[in-house]
Amino acid sequence: MVQYQEQLDRSFTALSDPTRRAILQRLGRSDASISDLADRFAMTLTGLKKHVQVLEDAGLVTTEKVGRVRHCRLGPQRLEHVTKWIATYQQMLEQRLDSLEAFLERTKGMP
Amino acid sequence: MVQYQEQLDRSFTALSDPTRRAILQRLGRSDASISDLADRFAMTLTGLKKHVQVLEDAGLVTTEKVGRVRHCRLGPQRLEHVTKWIATYQQMLEQRLDSLEAFLERTKGMP
Repeated sequence: MVQYQEQLDRSFTALSDPTRRAILQRLGRSDASISDLADRFAMTLTGLKKHVQVLEDAGLVTTEKVGRVRHCRLGPQRLEHVTKWIATYQQMLEQRLDSLEAFLERTKGMP
Repeated sequence: MVQYQEQLDRSFTALSDPTRRAILQRLGRSDASISDLADRFAMTLTGLKKHVQVLEDAGLVTTEKVGRVRHCRLGPQRLEHVTKWIATYQQMLEQRLDSLEAFLERTKGMP
């Protein structure tokens, strides 16, 4: 349970930055090196690496160094746990709305 | 577009903490005061207020002061934009997988 919560923490943190979301979308199209990504997002290598590290910590990206080039690709996590948490939350909201409607229906016409 | 990105930033940031996720789930069951929530999560009022502020900034919670009590309830945002971003991302991943399969199918048996 703690591990599940920590995984959620890391995933939501990774997704909370527009550059990191854009990196994920870019890697969704094809793998890229750190330099490719730094060029694409007009960032320094150091700044880009920090973002990739956060994505890597969340399991959303994996990197591999071949010679002097570090290649990035999407990692094993596919946001399933995030999707699951949001779905459970939205289901609870719907149930609450249903209960409210049922209550209003029962009390309709009461003085 | 910038506004949409900022809304995503705020929502994902709000969801990146286990206490904030638990507050949302708690308010999904019923409204509660800041004191109720501080008791429930064994936190100081100050600490709890900070979490509620982050949720309020994201539009996920609204608060109203009645007398000396600040009441919290779920806000207008229902994570639709978050759900949409994740759905678009996962759709892109599926398309990429389909392209890869089609490529493997075409090249099957090639030397």
